[in-house]
Amino acid sequence: MRADILVVGGGIGGLTAALALARDGHRVRVLEKAAQFAELGAGLQLAPNATRVLAGLGVLGRVLEAGVRPRRLLLRSALTADELTALDLGEPFLARYGAPYVVMHRSDLLAILYDACLAAGVGLQAGQDVVAVTGDDGAAAAECADGTSYQGAALIAADGLHSGIRALFSADQPVCSGFAAYRGTARIDEVTARSELDEVVAWIGPDLHFVQYPLRAGQIYNQVAVFRSRRYAADPGLADGEWGGPGELDDAFGTCCAQVREATGFLWRDRWWPMYDREPLAGWTRGRIALLGDAAHPMLQYLAQGACQAIEDADALARALAGCPGPQLIGKALAGYQAERAEHAARVQRTARTWGDIWHVSGVGALLRDELFRRRPADDYSYTDWLYGSRVL
Amino acid sequence: MRADILVVGGGIGGLTAALALARDGHRVRVLEKAAQFAELGAGLQLAPNATRVLAGLGVLGRVLEAGVRPRRLLLRSALTADELTALDLGEPFLARYGAPYVVMHRSDLLAILYDACLAAGVGLQAGQDVVAVTGDDGAAAAECADGTSYQGAALIAADGLHSGIRALFSADQPVCSGFAAYRGTARIDEVTARSELDEVVAWIGPDLHFVQYPLRAGQIYNQVAVFRSRRYAADPGLADGEWGGPGELDDAFGTCCAQVREATGFLWRDRWWPMYDREPLAGWTRGRIALLGDAAHPMLQYLAQGACQAIEDADALARALAGCPGPQLIGKALAGYQAERAEHAARVQRTARTWGDIWHVSGVGALLRDELFRRRPADDYSYTDWLYGSRVL
Repeated sequence: MRADILVVGGGIGGLTAALALARDGHRVRVLEKAAQFAELGAGLQLAPNATRVLAGLGVLGRVLEAGVRPRRLLLRSALTADELTALDLGEPFLARYGAPYVVMHRSDLLAILYDACLAAGVGLQAGQDVVAVTGDDGAAAAECADGTSYQGAALIAADGLHSGIRALFSADQPVCSGFAAYRGTARIDEVTARSELDEVVAWIGPDLHFVQYPLRAGQIYNQVAVFRSRRYAADPGLADGEWGGPGELDDAFGTCCAQVREATGFLWRDRWWPMYDREPLAGWTRGRIALLGDAAHPMLQYLAQGACQAIEDADALARALAGCPGPQLIGKALAGYQAERAEHAARVQRTARTWGDIWHVSGVGALLRDELFRRRPADDYSYTDWLYGSRVL
Repeated sequence: MRADILVVGGGIGGLTAALALARDGHRVRVLEKAAQFAELGAGLQLAPNATRVLAGLGVLGRVLEAGVRPRRLLLRSALTADELTALDLGEPFLARYGAPYVVMHRSDLLAILYDACLAAGVGLQAGQDVVAVTGDDGAAAAECADGTSYQGAALIAADGLHSGIRALFSADQPVCSGFAAYRGTARIDEVTARSELDEVVAWIGPDLHFVQYPLRAGQIYNQVAVFRSRRYAADPGLADGEWGGPGELDDAFGTCCAQVREATGFLWRDRWWPMYDREPLAGWTRGRIALLGDAAHPMLQYLAQGACQAIEDADALARALAGCPGPQLIGKALAGYQAERAEHAARVQRTARTWGDIWHVSGVGALLRDELFRRRPADDYSYTDWLYGSRVL
């Protein structure tokens, strides 16, 4: 079956879905609200469950050129700088998961996907703010704020954490974690407090963590600082922007080891991100409409799986529609996509919260965590098989 | 050197010390405040670091007759009843530590020590309330409330948690843990909710635990319930007896699994124990006076080492005095006893607190604990070697 498919939202999830669908012969149109296709933020981690899909879409070569393949993921104590545990990303990892672990700039991945979409004939419409959708009759349609409307056989909502289309499925709201994130990239030679260039390092401590890794073939260095806001904890009624400011950042990291304290000086201080997710959603599809990526399962960043799960969605969606015998059965195909993905994505959402709790635990919990970490070897993949998709049985 | 030695306190530590000293040829006199030599409480656990000493004193045979040799120590979830981890006490354990693990009635051990002391010629004086001691001149002396006074070459204070003699060394006070303990023994056929007869089982959960094991060759069953008092937490100014009552016991264990809830019905309800320890003490000896057992290092019961460490003290004390060339060097010998024991006993005190925290942790800390426990085999002795004294290098 080949059909016209509308994708609302031109982020990483939307463009990967558009690319996958276009490669299968569908005519795809992406409607992006912003004036340009662009990604906010800085670094992005792509685990094998995502790079495997990108390989299938023919873009892994460019991803590897633009990104960095770290040798290991390393967890260190933000307080003492001790190494706590690591995940070896070398040959045994590659053999097990069949695809590499890559870190790269979000905007680089978006540009690669954008180019590939263009080459595959995807219609890419920026400046289209979708204000209403339908998908219960024989077709799906999107109406934009400027009066333009689009029709298709199906509509994929990839409109992110604040998805308007999700309101068709649930009245739920994003859940504020009370943690704020600061980001920053800098030229590699400007960052005096960096870790090894072949590592992704997460420094973890009570109610905070700090992540470092290189981007763009090691030319720039990416950092993320995350901490629990005391202001927000004291008054959860505060609006975004009223909590998590630079003073809180400095206070939170003031007790960290010297390297982490120094490294926080290379963060952007004029902007920060309150961290949100949502509760898992029971139903993602209705008629000819389906959610994808953050619109379906926004998650905290602790597993670095937000983009990866969106990319997995795109792959599953394309397979579901490729197996659809005719346009009248699109609703069933979308339900199949949901059946493949929803339970797993919900588990990733929940596990991301727990993994964050593990990073941020204090007291005897931290003692138990460090001991558990100390006892596992770096080539123990028992905690990642379910997520990265082991090919070793 | 042979000398007259005064031991203040006729509990397990005091009588073991008296026995060890008498076996070495010292003339020993034990002064016990109570009208009879007796032990409060019920069950007692003797790890190899204690049974090794008891074997050397020639009383292990009677200890084994009166006690039970469990096959394993088992930790279970008090909430779900799941097995969390175990310590195998069988042949590999015996080979490693050179002595068995035994559980028995406290009063049975005291009776065995009392009989052995009598046979060894120890002077056993009950009803002697020591109100003043000296030990800085050429002799040590104890003065009792009834006016009696005793002299010796050294004085060993084994007068327990509330040691009056400790005031010579420190103005510290017992530290209340805010946990209350209920105990109970019953005829084995009366307890309907017991665990296997060859196991010591600790059911652990948030802010509580419950211990079960058999005594007297399996004829009676011993149980201990421990929980954090909410009344005490809300008002730490409450006196003992004003918190931890039976209503709190029932509330605390109300959320436990059926077996634990049923088992709490076999506890004594007319008496409970607030749980205290103290901070480690820098100095234990002064001139001819030395502390021993709970007087020196009272500890929370989580490692079941209170009696064991007192027995280790007795052994170290006897060796130190056996190596003393003459009465004028007794102070030096006592300092040697302290040097051998103080750091280790302080570590046991601190570790007992931490081990309790591990038992009682909730949330993500419990998840980490259970995972750490799940991954260790029952014959992993890496956490007990320092405590039980491995003979395997």
